[in-house]
Amino acid sequence: MAKKKKEAPITGITVSKDEDFSAWYTEIIEKAELADIRYNVKGFVCYRPWATISIRKMYRKYEELLEKNGHLPLTMPSLIPESNLMLEAAHVEGFAPEVFWVTEAGSSGPLSEKLALRPTSETALYPMYSIWIRSYKDLPFKRYQSCQVWRYEGKMTRPFFRGREFHWIEAHDVFATEEDAMVQVHEDMKMTYQMLQDEFCIPIIFFERPQWDKFAGAINTYAADALMGSGKVLQLPSTHLLGQNFSKPFNVKFVDKDGNEKYGYQTCYGPAISRIYGAMIAYLGDDKGLILPFDLAPIQIVIVPILIKGKEKIVLEKCKEVYERIRDKYIVKLDNSDDSPGSKFYYWEMKGVPFRIEIGPKDVANNQVVIVKRHDGQKFNIKNKEIESFIENMAENYTKEIKEKKMLDFESQIELCYEKDSAMEAIENGKIVCCGFCSIDNKGIRCAEVVEKEIGAFVRGKRVDEEKHEFASCIICGEPASCTVYLAKSY
Amino acid sequence: MAKKKKEAPITGITVSKDEDFSAWYTEIIEKAELADIRYNVKGFVCYRPWATISIRKMYRKYEELLEKNGHLPLTMPSLIPESNLMLEAAHVEGFAPEVFWVTEAGSSGPLSEKLALRPTSETALYPMYSIWIRSYKDLPFKRYQSCQVWRYEGKMTRPFFRGREFHWIEAHDVFATEEDAMVQVHEDMKMTYQMLQDEFCIPIIFFERPQWDKFAGAINTYAADALMGSGKVLQLPSTHLLGQNFSKPFNVKFVDKDGNEKYGYQTCYGPAISRIYGAMIAYLGDDKGLILPFDLAPIQIVIVPILIKGKEKIVLEKCKEVYERIRDKYIVKLDNSDDSPGSKFYYWEMKGVPFRIEIGPKDVANNQVVIVKRHDGQKFNIKNKEIESFIENMAENYTKEIKEKKMLDFESQIELCYEKDSAMEAIENGKIVCCGFCSIDNKGIRCAEVVEKEIGAFVRGKRVDEEKHEFASCIICGEPASCTVYLAKSY
Repeated sequence: MAKKKKEAPITGITVSKDEDFSAWYTEIIEKAELADIRYNVKGFVCYRPWATISIRKMYRKYEELLEKNGHLPLTMPSLIPESNLMLEAAHVEGFAPEVFWVTEAGSSGPLSEKLALRPTSETALYPMYSIWIRSYKDLPFKRYQSCQVWRYEGKMTRPFFRGREFHWIEAHDVFATEEDAMVQVHEDMKMTYQMLQDEFCIPIIFFERPQWDKFAGAINTYAADALMGSGKVLQLPSTHLLGQNFSKPFNVKFVDKDGNEKYGYQTCYGPAISRIYGAMIAYLGDDKGLILPFDLAPIQIVIVPILIKGKEKIVLEKCKEVYERIRDKYIVKLDNSDDSPGSKFYYWEMKGVPFRIEIGPKDVANNQVVIVKRHDGQKFNIKNKEIESFIENMAENYTKEIKEKKMLDFESQIELCYEKDSAMEAIENGKIVCCGFCSIDNKGIRCAEVVEKEIGAFVRGKRVDEEKHEFASCIICGEPASCTVYLAKSY
Repeated sequence: MAKKKKEAPITGITVSKDEDFSAWYTEIIEKAELADIRYNVKGFVCYRPWATISIRKMYRKYEELLEKNGHLPLTMPSLIPESNLMLEAAHVEGFAPEVFWVTEAGSSGPLSEKLALRPTSETALYPMYSIWIRSYKDLPFKRYQSCQVWRYEGKMTRPFFRGREFHWIEAHDVFATEEDAMVQVHEDMKMTYQMLQDEFCIPIIFFERPQWDKFAGAINTYAADALMGSGKVLQLPSTHLLGQNFSKPFNVKFVDKDGNEKYGYQTCYGPAISRIYGAMIAYLGDDKGLILPFDLAPIQIVIVPILIKGKEKIVLEKCKEVYERIRDKYIVKLDNSDDSPGSKFYYWEMKGVPFRIEIGPKDVANNQVVIVKRHDGQKFNIKNKEIESFIENMAENYTKEIKEKKMLDFESQIELCYEKDSAMEAIENGKIVCCGFCSIDNKGIRCAEVVEKEIGAFVRGKRVDEEKHEFASCIICGEPASCTVYLAKSY
């Protein structure tokens, strides 16, 4: 092992993730060549090939699941007239401060109407929905698009986590009844668990957000918070019950079985794929670099020849033979560059390639290869004839293994608190606080401001799944508690 | 057949393509639900699911081929600072009249620098290339992105063909020598033939464009013109030899083997997928509606039960059995809606579904099904046990059959002309004119203007493949001809 260390390339990760997460994240983004922050517009970054390929794979998984659940894809213009945006009052109030405006075109000077770069597409889509939907037979009407959105974020930006242009999916569904719409909200949450937990290995929990933190224009917002350990959470996909808040101003009506015209009930769901990618990189990675679920790795297996003078030919021949045997089924790279084997080990570990196959003269002599698993470093000597079956088995289990290792038990993250002081201490100790709260309706907003200012945390809302803890009074004002909420810092 | 006609839904195509192409195209766009032109920003349309799915399939085929040829995908911001755009003089001159400008953000008022919605990404990418490319070992450097671009088109817009936002792929490559760059130009042209002719069944021919019609900032542009029959052509993918025109202002340099810093030689290639989709719809479709290559159809096979009272159960059972047998391999829809079989036939023909399987009580009794091929209407009675093998064979050949039927022999489209009058007549008769021309350098521009004004056609340039025809003098000015060019009307 000493030998390998000596060969470590200067490009390796130099910061410990536990000691300085921010510096670690910045370094991995740069050295694993995921994004480049040197693009000269603030808040906008380039996604490099290694990230682009994984993000594309994430999109395809998500799109497949959405379509399996009855959604059809469409493609909307990315410019929205100001007058569309104005139609739903709460929506425009929420988004106006974040809109990039197109005001001029070519040499013809100012446009007659300002056009928004879509911050989200409700106000582009729903005027079309009012044309496309005619009858109860058209319902449920489930559509989605994969696209980018632009938001003039005031906060500090960080590649993938938070930027002024990000890549997401937005699904917009219309139903005949509010009950049907709520069924969709639950389907959206189920899809989120399937994707984020099972495929991307990110532990999440869903909260019904307080009224002051809901999507602009929604009745209720149900948002997944990723549990990043250490008490901090990160908001990931959220699904919104819009009710008739948009269908009325946008005139999304249908003729029901009884012959009467009715307004539809709507939901929308917005998994931000580029942000989920950032969360995955951040949460799964270690001090050697990236760890990626097997299906998402741009390269799944790297073959590294260990060349000893005079034996190059037999080793390279065997490498090529193994490559040919597995290349149809997996994405395989045979790395026969001039770098030392140690440098290659470090480099491909940093890039998160799930399996490394090492082949040296001894392996040739012993009719075997060495296979190393990235996420736990386990090493295996595998006989020639067992290579395919071993890899197949390991590939099947790799993502599950990561998931099992990285899933967090939500209960173990929380601390029940009854007073502000103990809540402050729990937050400082990297816990999520579980406590009583007067109300997540708008009348609770004053207590939420105290939580923010004095405890340094946010009210994430009521958990959507079963709540076991009950409290008599609000942790801030002492009034009778109407619900149990969770307080946490967030990214 | 009379029966079917009686059942024809009022949604069928009512205009003959030969008689009025424009009206036919408008109707098919609407009735096959490909796009909706009622979005309230001029030149911007919604792509509906049926188009979005095929376009996605076209993207995947193109991306796979680009990656097979050594390109890696990346994702660039869609906003470009004005100062980037200004760096290459000819480029900014060409694109400035078409740029949409973002000038304001949120409530913070005017931005300190105007941002262009990318009309193309040279000026976004190449500053990054100047950071990423260091040494000859980084070359060739081949990247692409799949994205949309925005251009403030003055001309009439038409869904997919020409719009102010369109979806394309742009590949940007850097080489050590001009020879290497020219090899890439030829690879780009080869890819274009592979995709457009072999996969999308659109006949094309490549022209070296005249200097006055080249890409803004390029040394030379090589553009595919689709032969639409009737003498009109449509510009499809073009590849551009940029030489060092961009590498110098953008400082794209590499340290060569000899230790010296040199400027790279660049190419760029931009297949506009949404436009190619429009060309495909337009070129392949007939008076019944869409015709789609097998791989691009959102639904490949539709099963239509022919229900007769009392026999519904056995027919539906057989439909389901056939569905289960083929659904893993193909995208199959079993249409058991309430519409009449005739309406279903018309509807799915209009949508371009390649194969229709009809199953009625007689077919159940005879242990067979009826299979109808969309592109030529051929009808087959197929025994139960032969269904899979018959479909497999037919699926393999379907796209090839369309291609063979639709390929145009370029020679048969052209007419050799020696005088302006005969050229005018040839153009009027729907021919492409082949003639002598003084020069496709800038000094030929006056004659090109005459071609445009008096003949009503455009100089498409010199053909890239072998030129067999030679002319002594320019068809306009009578000076000695330096080359053979082609004149045509264009969409």
